[in-house]
Order: sequence, then C-alpha cells, then structure tokens
Amino acid sequence: MIKKLGFIGAGNVAWHLSIVLNKSGLNIVQVISRTLDSAQKLGDKVSAEFSDSLDDMSKEVDLWIIAIPDDAIQTVCKRFPFIPKFAVHTSGSIALEVLEGKAKEIGVFYPLQTFSKQREVNMQEVPFCIEAENRGFFDNLEFLAKQISSKVYPISSKERRELHLAAVFACNFTNAMYTIAEDLLEQKNLDFEILHPLIEETAQKAIDNSPKEMQTGPAIREDDKTINNHLKGLDNQEYQKLYRLMSDIIKQRNKN
Amino acid sequence: MIKKLGFIGAGNVAWHLSIVLNKSGLNIVQVISRTLDSAQKLGDKVSAEFSDSLDDMSKEVDLWIIAIPDDAIQTVCKRFPFIPKFAVHTSGSIALEVLEGKAKEIGVFYPLQTFSKQREVNMQEVPFCIEAENRGFFDNLEFLAKQISSKVYPISSKERRELHLAAVFACNFTNAMYTIAEDLLEQKNLDFEILHPLIEETAQKAIDNSPKEMQTGPAIREDDKTINNHLKGLDNQEYQKLYRLMSDIIKQRNKN
Repeated sequence: MIKKLGFIGAGNVAWHLSIVLNKSGLNIVQVISRTLDSAQKLGDKVSAEFSDSLDDMSKEVDLWIIAIPDDAIQTVCKRFPFIPKFAVHTSGSIALEVLEGKAKEIGVFYPLQTFSKQREVNMQEVPFCIEAENRGFFDNLEFLAKQISSKVYPISSKERRELHLAAVFACNFTNAMYTIAEDLLEQKNLDFEILHPLIEETAQKAIDNSPKEMQTGPAIREDDKTINNHLKGLDNQEYQKLYRLMSDIIKQRNKN
Repeated sequence: MIKKLGFIGAGNVAWHLSIVLNKSGLNIVQVISRTLDSAQKLGDKVSAEFSDSLDDMSKEVDLWIIAIPDDAIQTVCKRFPFIPKFAVHTSGSIALEVLEGKAKEIGVFYPLQTFSKQREVNMQEVPFCIEAENRGFFDNLEFLAKQISSKVYPISSKERRELHLAAVFACNFTNAMYTIAEDLLEQKNLDFEILHPLIEETAQKAIDNSPKEMQTGPAIREDDKTINNHLKGLDNQEYQKLYRLMSDIIKQRNKN
C-alpha cells in the first residue's frame, strides 16, 4: 500500500495534485523543487518537509510523483541519490521508459487537464491516465487515482502520446482561437465578454454531441462571399493565413 | 408597439427565436419559408399561418423578422409584394442598409449564438445585437429583445461585422479544433469523451479570465522537442500545417 508521498516539482500539476491527495488522507512527506521558495510554499500548504536538493530525498517516501517539465524528467531522475521504491511521472508526452532503472517500480500518473495555480480544479472530473509495467503497482496507482477522481483509465505510453497531441488541438489551440477573437475585438474597442455565451455553448455542444456534426459558420455553408469579406477585414497576415487554412479544412472534411 | 410578428425563414435561428418570442406572449402571425414543409413545421409549432410564397405576406404583421441565409436576404426583400411597416434581419455579417427601402422602418436583431434545431438554447443568456436608424424603432426592438434575453447591446453594422468575424474564431474554428482532436483519437481507437473535461475547463478558463493569460501547452513553453514530436505524429499534411501555424502564432504573441 502507498501511504507516504513525495513530490518532485512544485508547479501547477504538483500544486493541485498534492493538495487533493493530502485532503483525501494521503501523507505528503516531502516536496522538492528547484527553487526553495516554491518548495516551501507548497510544503507549507500540504504540511510536508521541503528542499531544493535531490540529495535530501527522504527514504520514508513510498511513491515519488515527478511533476516537472518534460525535458527535465530524465536529467532529474539521473540525480536520485538512491533507487526509491516507487516513482511515477505526470507527463502527457514522455514514455514510461524514461524512468527505467530509476526506481524499483515505475509508472505514469497523468492528469489530462489544464491546471493554473490560481484556479480551483474539480479533481473528481479530471481523467487520470495510468500506466505501469508491474500489475501490482498498476493496481496501487489505480487505487490512488480513484481516491481523487471518478475517471481513471489504463493508457499505454503510445496512447498517451496520441491523447496529448489531440489535447493540444482541443485545449491549447482552442485557447489560442479565443485569444485571437479577444485580440480582434480589443482592436475595435469591443468587449470580449459578449462572446462568452457563444464560447460556452460551442464547448457544450461538442461535449453533448460529436463536434463534427455541430459545425456551423461560413466555411461549412461554402459561403465564399462572407469568407472573402472576413479575409479583407483581417489586417494581421498570420490571422488571414489561419482563417484560410481553417476554412479549407472545414470545407474539405465536409466533402469527405 | 410591436405585437404581431411574421417570420421569413424557418431555419435554426427562426426556429428558436419564434418559439421563445411566442412563449413570452408575442403573437406569431405567419411563417414563410422556401419549402412548404418547413414553413408548416414551424407554423404549427408557434400556432401561425404558413406559406412558401412571399405573395402571401400578411398585412396584419407589425414586424417581419427575416432569418434566412445571408446571400438570400437582398433577393428576398426585393420580392416583397408591399412595403411593410417594420422589418429586421438576424444576420451577423450583413449591413443594415441591405433593407433600405424594403420596409418603413428597418433594423437588425442579431442573436450572437450558435443554434441547432435539436438543442434547447437558454435565450436569456444569448447576447442580442440591436440596430436601427430610427430611435423609436430601436427602442421597440430593444424592448422586444429584453423580453427574451438579459443581454441586449446596441451594435452598429460595422461593429457587428467585427463581432461576427471574432465569433468565427471563437466558435466555428474552435469547433473545427475539437473535430480534429476527435478525428485524431478515432484513428487510434481512443474515445473522444476523455477530452470532455479538458474542453469544458478550457472554455471556462477563457470566460473567467482573459484567454491570453491562460495559454498553456508546448508552444507557449517554447518546448520545441514536444512540438517536433507532435509534427512527426501527424500524418495529415493540413493538420501539420495548422499545428505549425498555431504554434508560431502562440510563440509570436508571447514575444510581444
């Protein structure tokens, strides 16, 4: 049984994950982060020891949760002062194998959500993608995830990579679209707020139905007159290029 | 006072608008649509006469609401058998002037939302963009809109065009992003459902904050390793092109 946790990293994911795990009765023993200040902030929050050095890694910890930027995972694991019992990372795009040899049992504990420190997250609704080589360790991780979320999925490294790629379109690029809309309105002194109900309904429609059946707008109607007017209305060349490409993709899909 | 309404068009907008207006006590006198079948369906729904011919336009109607595709508005208005008292169109991208001379008082009554017949819409939350040349008629339209929605804005034709363009990014292109995510997952036999909480939270974050402050993902982190892995993982060339362009736009904005 996993009872005592250690966190490596104190960023958005470590922040939300450790707080929720702590609330559900797990003991967070230690938080280690590159900067002492952020280690202390989170450590204080979850009543854990804190340090800015991997050399301080506590042997009391059962499971280390490595929640740091993708490109730092490999380097950080190499600097473990001993081989701990259990370790997982929380990345969407890094394969399980990166932890090979770095702990006795290794796994992945990937929450498929966008986190910001200043926002509360309803963890019960966050999908957790779980992976481990060892069946017993997998069961342990699944048990842990189910204590904080109702959505737990066994997902291989390959599948996780696909999910992460799809999530970039559904989240990061979608947010960039919102930002462009905000930018266009700000240029004309119009309030972005007027688009809020539309943004909400568009997301809700895609959740309640298949988004491909919910497409509306000039491109799907092949309304080239409106498309050309919109292109003329865009001063920014990148936005023009994007408008053209999106319209082509929407039209093309409609034909297939 | 406007009491008796006529609808030209029986599509998504006419459908939702006439039903809500009818429920709030307005009398829908007549529905005219190109196909008799759709005119009848909506006419029956709101206890109105119906016809497929503009020659049947009833002189009893105070206000005609023209809710038809953008490129049909001008042609249809030219075929009015008489000059009615009041007329508005419901389009986001067509200027008020298109109705000039087609009714004694002309205006725009644009609900800024995405409608599908099969989905209920909470009209109270739909922003209505109102425009009219005549102040008295504007007040009438505003009064009408406030009976069904709590969000009523005076918006000029020029502003409305900007709003509509921004809405294409925030709604149509966003939905296309969801569709690409769905497509990528379907190709790998993964369930799109797993992205639902992410889609919901991404929209909610953009509503509760400014989306430009909420950007996450590999592009804003300048994580070129993940970006290149994602590009390699995309078979579809259009998707590759889009991934590259979106990442460039996100990076560029981050630098400004």
